[in-house]
Amino acid sequence: MKKFYFIVLLLLIGTSTTFSQTTAPADSMVYVCPPCNGSCDQLQFDKPGVCPHCGMALVKMSLSDFKKLLAAKPITIAFYLQDGVEVLDFAGPMEVFITAGFNVITVSKTYKPIRSKTVLFITPDYTIADAPKSDILVVFGGPTQPTIDDPEVMAWLKAQISSDKYVMSVCTGAFILGKTGILDNLTATTFHTAIGDLAKAYPKTKVLANTRFVDNGTVITTAGISAGIDGALHLVEKLRGRPYAKSVAETIEYDKWVPDNGLIVKTN
Amino acid sequence: MKKFYFIVLLLLIGTSTTFSQTTAPADSMVYVCPPCNGSCDQLQFDKPGVCPHCGMALVKMSLSDFKKLLAAKPITIAFYLQDGVEVLDFAGPMEVFITAGFNVITVSKTYKPIRSKTVLFITPDYTIADAPKSDILVVFGGPTQPTIDDPEVMAWLKAQISSDKYVMSVCTGAFILGKTGILDNLTATTFHTAIGDLAKAYPKTKVLANTRFVDNGTVITTAGISAGIDGALHLVEKLRGRPYAKSVAETIEYDKWVPDNGLIVKTN
Repeated sequence: MKKFYFIVLLLLIGTSTTFSQTTAPADSMVYVCPPCNGSCDQLQFDKPGVCPHCGMALVKMSLSDFKKLLAAKPITIAFYLQDGVEVLDFAGPMEVFITAGFNVITVSKTYKPIRSKTVLFITPDYTIADAPKSDILVVFGGPTQPTIDDPEVMAWLKAQISSDKYVMSVCTGAFILGKTGILDNLTATTFHTAIGDLAKAYPKTKVLANTRFVDNGTVITTAGISAGIDGALHLVEKLRGRPYAKSVAETIEYDKWVPDNGLIVKTN
Repeated sequence: MKKFYFIVLLLLIGTSTTFSQTTAPADSMVYVCPPCNGSCDQLQFDKPGVCPHCGMALVKMSLSDFKKLLAAKPITIAFYLQDGVEVLDFAGPMEVFITAGFNVITVSKTYKPIRSKTVLFITPDYTIADAPKSDILVVFGGPTQPTIDDPEVMAWLKAQISSDKYVMSVCTGAFILGKTGILDNLTATTFHTAIGDLAKAYPKTKVLANTRFVDNGTVITTAGISAGIDGALHLVEKLRGRPYAKSVAETIEYDKWVPDNGLIVKTN
């Protein structure tokens, strides 16, 4: 594998007229390939453009952040996807976390493909029977009642919650988290038309409207659909610092990201 | 089917204590179920909450917009998804278009599942050999070179472009559109680090940086990744009017949407 990487590297240096590996100081900006699981994930360039290896547009990053990214302990984030899951609920955070270099896995009850938002036909990477250990669990909106009513899935989710460092819900995914009991005596939010229902369903939880996300330290809930992007960027900031999270926001051109634009009940 | 719908309707009216169908005037606001392909897509309620049929959170909409939505000619939008396609590139517009009540289909070269952003395992609805006629074609970023180099796929895309009313690209999907020739003598944009490369690859196209989207009338290109959401909302506005597009933006909680926040070269 290393030999292959070395050959690819030689080919790139040998054939590219636009790119060259940089030897810039640690605080300078470099251009790198977004994670694509190819060996080019580890290359750096001194000019913008398209990766000559995989064809993806390069992203700008400080050399020190890039080195931090390569050296960091891999973080595995499990996305529990139920049938009918709202597409932007999970795809926004997926874009953010993968761009940040995290390892995202999709988990569903079985390997039977699901339809996201009635359209997107997805086969999960794992089922609740064989998913590997994750560091972070995220759940999403769309139809949540079948998940809440499923004792096997709820048992798996509870087991993740008791062992994972961070837990996040997007949109009406908060109803799933609520059922596990993790939101008892915490503050939370959800999709704007479901605020009242969440408060009724889980009376031990203080439910806030007009709040982009609520961070209780290790338990984060976000408002509806596109707010998952903000929740994910906030979690990246907690794990890798604000400059790094800002570079992720710039890469995905979520220009309007406002750090701390939510309720931070507790830092950790 | 109508009998089934009538029975479901009776059950809903008979068992729900929270919801009732509204008889409000046309300019009043109602709560409706987001499209889920169930009969509840046609129901309206007078209070926010969760749909008692499918469990999805209801969305707020004016009664006249809801009637317009039910009566409108279905619009089919083909999403061409290549292997490695950037996840938020397509998922943002998918969320917008489905929320707006459009019929989104996914098309790829073959039925072989693809990996979006190295992770999401997707099986397309159709291939280029059997995809039904669409009204709008949208292409996306991620690795685009294999698509550009594939004469069969490019022939299918060109055929769509010559017959579809609207064409849109998100992010480096502009490189695919450029190859079809449709961007010749037009203004366009793409992912921020690929601006120079697009201009070099397609010298007959005026390529703009720092532009959220460029609308040439029927050909729209957007900036990178999350900018696809803005491009899709702009297209919904062109087809259904600004109040309707605003209600879609509010539903997906893309609060920061600024209509016309791009370059409109030509209206149509």
